[in-house]
Amino acid sequence: MTYCCGILVREGLVMIADTRTNAGLDNISTFRKLQLFEQPGRHVMMLAASGNLSVTQGAVNVLVEGLENSETGEVERLEEAKSMVQAAHLVGRAIRRSLELMGDAVKQAGVSFDVALLFGGQIGAAPPRLFMVYTAGNAIECTPDTPYLQIGEHKYGKPILDRAITYETDIYDALKIGLISMDSTIRSNLSVGLPIDIALLRRDALKTEVAARIGANDTYFRDLRERWSAALRAAHIAIPPPPYRDRQ
Amino acid sequence: MTYCCGILVREGLVMIADTRTNAGLDNISTFRKLQLFEQPGRHVMMLAASGNLSVTQGAVNVLVEGLENSETGEVERLEEAKSMVQAAHLVGRAIRRSLELMGDAVKQAGVSFDVALLFGGQIGAAPPRLFMVYTAGNAIECTPDTPYLQIGEHKYGKPILDRAITYETDIYDALKIGLISMDSTIRSNLSVGLPIDIALLRRDALKTEVAARIGANDTYFRDLRERWSAALRAAHIAIPPPPYRDRQ
Repeated sequence: MTYCCGILVREGLVMIADTRTNAGLDNISTFRKLQLFEQPGRHVMMLAASGNLSVTQGAVNVLVEGLENSETGEVERLEEAKSMVQAAHLVGRAIRRSLELMGDAVKQAGVSFDVALLFGGQIGAAPPRLFMVYTAGNAIECTPDTPYLQIGEHKYGKPILDRAITYETDIYDALKIGLISMDSTIRSNLSVGLPIDIALLRRDALKTEVAARIGANDTYFRDLRERWSAALRAAHIAIPPPPYRDRQ
Repeated sequence: MTYCCGILVREGLVMIADTRTNAGLDNISTFRKLQLFEQPGRHVMMLAASGNLSVTQGAVNVLVEGLENSETGEVERLEEAKSMVQAAHLVGRAIRRSLELMGDAVKQAGVSFDVALLFGGQIGAAPPRLFMVYTAGNAIECTPDTPYLQIGEHKYGKPILDRAITYETDIYDALKIGLISMDSTIRSNLSVGLPIDIALLRRDALKTEVAARIGANDTYFRDLRERWSAALRAAHIAIPPPPYRDRQ
């Protein structure tokens, strides 16, 4: 399984992804799911992937090596996209191309080749944008009404995002709340696990401000987990006991 | 959809169930999903249902009207069960019987007839027990290692149970934490909704101590939701900002 979330606030973009993959419960590995495409001063694009790993890795290879546009005959690469909308279209086409390259045999394999990707970033002076791209290549875009998107095991980590994130949230608070959301998911779903990759892009910086990996020994993340647990404990203890008795 | 949870602590049993049903997103109704079978001094049994409503309502009818035991020829009713294990078996058979009574046509209807039930209570001097009964009639039992069971939309409300409930938790704290779990679910899944039904059975009381319905105007539940929201907000604000910058 996987859990990734992307948060788009006024100040910029945060992406968080776990690294646990599993082919059955008895075959668990660590794979990077968050890819950065960065050319400082020109663009920063971030891609987080969930679903069938052969499809998503294949799509990343297509994005790097280039994909022929059947209408123009040109070979298009992610690094050369002129806008985030064009780039998101290219990501969608790369997923389809990755599936094509596998040939027809995969259709008979009886496994799911579904994927979902979060794709965000900024190119030039246009504002940062964040998309979720589906297996069919179609995409939806994040808007200020709900300034985050999730892929993979999204339910455990959704309540804190719903309660705490708005478009006006400080970007480092957004990262912090994203890490709490990841912590809740890791606690409840064994197939989502450390280390986690994080990236933070400040609007108009055109250079990642944070690109880090958080492992089990990370002091800040350990402290965040302990503080969050202690605060939740204190929170429910502080609520008075229910008054219901012999009432119908 | 549905969310129900049962919590079995040393002091007794708590059951919580929402009441929202939907046949498609455009057809939402309120139905009681938590049924009590109580004969003070002899037994208290509680049944919470999720899944296909025609199957679960049919199963309750079978439990009340009685189900012939093909081996003994006797008609067995839930109210006459001699132990919680016997009663849980009867609940499983009632689900199968409810499906049989619908005839073969339902198999062609193309909808899911899956159900899951929480069934708990105490009969006589034996300790309280809590089971989850599946469509096939089989059941698992709650044990002190994980002293709760959930059916329906379980993910949003699971983190708080995982963190806060142990077998030694005070029974009214268990009810309170169950209500927080319900609140998290209601906030994130529109198909789980108020009013909610709650029941509390203290060990060896052989009489429900609480059997109540909580609606939108319930002062305690409104206060709990507000306090919980405020505490979560305070909790994440109190965590220091992440230190990650230009690190790889």
